[in-house]
Amino acid sequence: MINKYSYTQINVSSSNIHKFQILKPCLCQITLTPPKLIPNKMNSSKTLRKLEVLSPVPADIDIANSVEPFHISEIAKNLNLNPNHYDLYGKYKAKVLLSVLDDLQGSQDGYYVVVGGITPTPLGEGKSTTTVGLCQALGAFLDKKVVTCLRQPSQGPTFGIKGGAAGGGYSQVIPMDEFNLHLTGDIHAITAANNLLAAAIDTRIFHESTQSDKALFNRLCPPNKEGKRSFSDVMFRRLKKLGISKTNPDDLTPEEVNKFARLDIDPNSVTWRRVMDINDRFLRKITIGQGPEEKGMVRETGFDISVASEIMAVLALTTSLADMRERLGKMVIGNSKSGEPITADDLGIGGALTVLMKDAINPTLMQTLEGTPVLVHAGPFANIAHGNSSIVADKIALKLVGPGGFVVTEAGFGADIGTEKFMNIKCRYSGLKPQCAIIVATIRALKMHGGGPAVVAGKPLDHAYLTENITLVEAGCMNMARHISNTKAYGVNVVVAINKFSTDTEAEVNAVRNAALAAGAYDAVICSHHAHGGKGAVDLGIAVQKACENVAQPLKFLYPLDLSIKEKIEAIAKSYGANGVEYSEQAEKQIDMYSKQGFSGLPICMAKTQYSFSDNAAVKGAPSGFVLPIRDVRASIGAGFIYPLVGTMSTMPGLPTRPCFYDIDLDTTTGKVIGLS
Amino acid sequence: MINKYSYTQINVSSSNIHKFQILKPCLCQITLTPPKLIPNKMNSSKTLRKLEVLSPVPADIDIANSVEPFHISEIAKNLNLNPNHYDLYGKYKAKVLLSVLDDLQGSQDGYYVVVGGITPTPLGEGKSTTTVGLCQALGAFLDKKVVTCLRQPSQGPTFGIKGGAAGGGYSQVIPMDEFNLHLTGDIHAITAANNLLAAAIDTRIFHESTQSDKALFNRLCPPNKEGKRSFSDVMFRRLKKLGISKTNPDDLTPEEVNKFARLDIDPNSVTWRRVMDINDRFLRKITIGQGPEEKGMVRETGFDISVASEIMAVLALTTSLADMRERLGKMVIGNSKSGEPITADDLGIGGALTVLMKDAINPTLMQTLEGTPVLVHAGPFANIAHGNSSIVADKIALKLVGPGGFVVTEAGFGADIGTEKFMNIKCRYSGLKPQCAIIVATIRALKMHGGGPAVVAGKPLDHAYLTENITLVEAGCMNMARHISNTKAYGVNVVVAINKFSTDTEAEVNAVRNAALAAGAYDAVICSHHAHGGKGAVDLGIAVQKACENVAQPLKFLYPLDLSIKEKIEAIAKSYGANGVEYSEQAEKQIDMYSKQGFSGLPICMAKTQYSFSDNAAVKGAPSGFVLPIRDVRASIGAGFIYPLVGTMSTMPGLPTRPCFYDIDLDTTTGKVIGLS
Repeated sequence: MINKYSYTQINVSSSNIHKFQILKPCLCQITLTPPKLIPNKMNSSKTLRKLEVLSPVPADIDIANSVEPFHISEIAKNLNLNPNHYDLYGKYKAKVLLSVLDDLQGSQDGYYVVVGGITPTPLGEGKSTTTVGLCQALGAFLDKKVVTCLRQPSQGPTFGIKGGAAGGGYSQVIPMDEFNLHLTGDIHAITAANNLLAAAIDTRIFHESTQSDKALFNRLCPPNKEGKRSFSDVMFRRLKKLGISKTNPDDLTPEEVNKFARLDIDPNSVTWRRVMDINDRFLRKITIGQGPEEKGMVRETGFDISVASEIMAVLALTTSLADMRERLGKMVIGNSKSGEPITADDLGIGGALTVLMKDAINPTLMQTLEGTPVLVHAGPFANIAHGNSSIVADKIALKLVGPGGFVVTEAGFGADIGTEKFMNIKCRYSGLKPQCAIIVATIRALKMHGGGPAVVAGKPLDHAYLTENITLVEAGCMNMARHISNTKAYGVNVVVAINKFSTDTEAEVNAVRNAALAAGAYDAVICSHHAHGGKGAVDLGIAVQKACENVAQPLKFLYPLDLSIKEKIEAIAKSYGANGVEYSEQAEKQIDMYSKQGFSGLPICMAKTQYSFSDNAAVKGAPSGFVLPIRDVRASIGAGFIYPLVGTMSTMPGLPTRPCFYDIDLDTTTGKVIGLS
Repeated sequence: MINKYSYTQINVSSSNIHKFQILKPCLCQITLTPPKLIPNKMNSSKTLRKLEVLSPVPADIDIANSVEPFHISEIAKNLNLNPNHYDLYGKYKAKVLLSVLDDLQGSQDGYYVVVGGITPTPLGEGKSTTTVGLCQALGAFLDKKVVTCLRQPSQGPTFGIKGGAAGGGYSQVIPMDEFNLHLTGDIHAITAANNLLAAAIDTRIFHESTQSDKALFNRLCPPNKEGKRSFSDVMFRRLKKLGISKTNPDDLTPEEVNKFARLDIDPNSVTWRRVMDINDRFLRKITIGQGPEEKGMVRETGFDISVASEIMAVLALTTSLADMRERLGKMVIGNSKSGEPITADDLGIGGALTVLMKDAINPTLMQTLEGTPVLVHAGPFANIAHGNSSIVADKIALKLVGPGGFVVTEAGFGADIGTEKFMNIKCRYSGLKPQCAIIVATIRALKMHGGGPAVVAGKPLDHAYLTENITLVEAGCMNMARHISNTKAYGVNVVVAINKFSTDTEAEVNAVRNAALAAGAYDAVICSHHAHGGKGAVDLGIAVQKACENVAQPLKFLYPLDLSIKEKIEAIAKSYGANGVEYSEQAEKQIDMYSKQGFSGLPICMAKTQYSFSDNAAVKGAPSGFVLPIRDVRASIGAGFIYPLVGTMSTMPGLPTRPCFYDIDLDTTTGKVIGLS
């Protein structure tokens, strides 16, 4: 990787040049003669790696282990980051500090590209791999400044069925074990914060049930040694909400003491659940409080996977430390018995949650197989949240690449959900505007939409998918066409990336290309980045560059925020092809409640299957004329969206009979992870 | 901290001098003239900081925030660590890699000092503070090489009642917020590993209940594309345990298939609980599996605080990656219906647990207020485990300080439990021998043992504790005396550290000193490190040095391992002053079971209150002639001990009405944590 005759940077800048000492002066004297300090072409500091690709493509972990990653400080240097801009976490990961944005204030953004997909098969169509491959092409072959922005994967599936999520083949983020495990602890911080809040809720209900207003108040505002009481800072937030402007606890009337000290949480209204970054199906529904000390205050609740925590969605949508503090504080955990929303700050815990999340707000810098930089940050569960990586990572990346550079980010699920939420939720909060949206398509998925037999994970593919069948492909393109026209409506140029498999024929691929252009795509390009790394996505890179350079329209949202909750839901449903929406009684009740509570101005985050435009995963192609059922409506007030449930969404996966963990072990001699897929 | 004219080291060594480039050559040319490279006295690279102490002593957080920590690479350098020996985690923490031990193989150890205490009051008598203060004295005033080895605190109490655990006053580990929160993620890794195993247990029981032997075996050893089956590596561990030496799955007889694939776990025997690093009392007892998909397979279980996980005890007692892999694999989670112990490796998960723990095995390097190095590593819950920091940190530290240097480590709880387990469990597994054991005593606690009124946390101290009362002190010294003679019996020199408070009188302190010497202490020294930092523990440092230099005896355990479980319990009970042991029916049953299962050769880890030598926390002083009741007996087979329960031990704390989190917030402008205590 590093030519042994080349130079590389050390942590020396004008600001710390005075802190300098050489351990072996004689050696340094030889090395540091001025002529040798000027990097020449051979000594280029660029951290690009030429891949030697094998065919057939080896296992992901074997490819990942076949290259020695660059020290992450070298990757950082190529982004013009200095050591004050990041904290190292070992040799191959660094947290880029949010303060970078202050240093880059006023500098211009690069191009912003989002990667979505057609409605996928259960096998996935390669969105992450395309995102990584495109960046390898832009950075290593087209000489562009580029940053890939990816979500941090949940550790649950890594040990369950799915395996890792670092891309695949010759388009991967490395080291892939560090990417898939722990990373820099952000999800662990979310778990800790989420569960501290959960513990605070049940304990508060418990303490309120056994104490008088006066006793409660005495404990919340205890006298100090001099007998003086005071409110803590966080208490002023609740006082303000209650319209109490007094600053001395002793001045509160008994009514005010009651209002202040008694949250009076309705246990049945508590929507805040505990989380764990493990596929633990037995925690989906549990009864807590069965210990004798809890005096019979049992309650039914459950655990979600950590990435489904609202705190993950907050992390993804926040724009600064101060903004995160506010969002965490205003998360609603349930209602009081009189129907008032109760927030984290009512429980006095918004500050502590922010402290637990203070490092998590900094994105993690990693690298691709070809040495281009990657920012990994946040991974809100696409089932019930918006499924996009963080705003702060995108913002930092756009400044770092600067004008003419590229930031490529992936939107989870199919474009009907992922790209839609990227535009209407993420871009609305960030104020950023993408120039180009990619739609990843595979012949396999298009054949399925054209009427091909069901594709089932773990079962062999039907013959139809392995031999040429133009009819199926052409019929399936109607799914792609709707994704194209929906995406184009945001005012971006749409480029279709045809992720080519070895069994796809030229005629099939051409049929897709023609259909894409006919449906209004700016371009449609064949890619083979899985087999060839960045080299296999060079054409895509060129198309994306043109698409970015030639966008003219402003970003146009699907709906304005000042519509009613129902009108917003209906606007999204229409984009799915539905001609109406049906609300359950529960959904009506919730919409009514959120509207009364003043939350109707939030954007909508549909919780719908990604396997169909409709609510029924079995309906492929581009269905229309159906009625979209809304079974329930929930809200993530701190993150900032209302999420209607179209059907039942699982928020806690399970383990199969033979989970991935059977193959995972550590080579205790080398310290290397083995068996991770 | 760093004089702006001084030099500091950068990561340059002979091995990486070829990777070298200066960003601003002109500046460097000026700076790097040879004469300036030689550090002079003023530019000493030693990271020692002179404290300016205030009186009265400010709040811990204010003291901690008043100094800018050294970059941790400077602390590492003073330990002769090079950058390949550690991974940075930000600027003030680094994980020291286990491979350091390979590099230091053959080099000699320094002196090994353990800090225990007399039976404490609920306010604590300052063991951590003494440990830190002594090291500040040795390093900053007595010019010794020294490393402090401390436990990582649980995050639960930080947000609950107790606050942080970084020492106090002018004897602290900094940055104290990083010490108390997340650190380098070890406890999060333990939580993840513990709960992955828990999920695997319930899911396995579930899958076995719905599948035939054949179906189960087919899923565990599925045919590959060529129709060939194979065992994964971890499966050979189970096969070996079952006495099956076949290597081809197809060769197994139906009986062998049944034995191999069906663990047949008895749900009522499962002792493995889930964990969370949160004070969440409502999880103490819960019912899981109430979701409709789990088909009525409900089970009562509960959560412990993460530090109570057996995996934490494994981390503390392991000696290498390979040893950790073995210990994690042999952890017993319950029994089969026929009474066979079922291990993590039977579930196929030992390797995955090791992978989750691979970074956690590396101790975290931090620093004291005076710039001496600290290794923070592991923190097994003293209630049910041995309550000592890790063996690997001590081993690394002993090599790093070398002959004449000092490693000081704390043993949790009073010496009857903490020091006893340090000797009989930790030193037995590590093979290390301490030269000196410190017993921290306070006038306050001694007065309590002498018959003073109850000391209750949160209530004002009785008059007796604030004015001179020699009679109470002298009467209380019998508690100290027993701790001294018990500790001395291990063959170490015992030094009593009298942690002096401002209200203590000279006569009181002298009475303790005399009593200590009379009881066989090597020395007894007054310290004021809380108020004065290392300067306040210089006498203690001198005494410890003498004690270490003058130890003659070999380490003598309290019991040999080949005694029966009951004989070992009785040997420990005798050291408490008991004249007998009474076993409950349940305890008898468990002892019988563990003996039959072949686990009787393990050391014993008593789960007893630290507030009395006896099982009754209210009995102070040095009780004798009582019968110690053993209510239950459990085991941590992977960690390697049997733990008899003397009374009910809480393994999940709760939150008070006004938890610490009310005061904790982030200054979003500076990014600093405020309100942490």
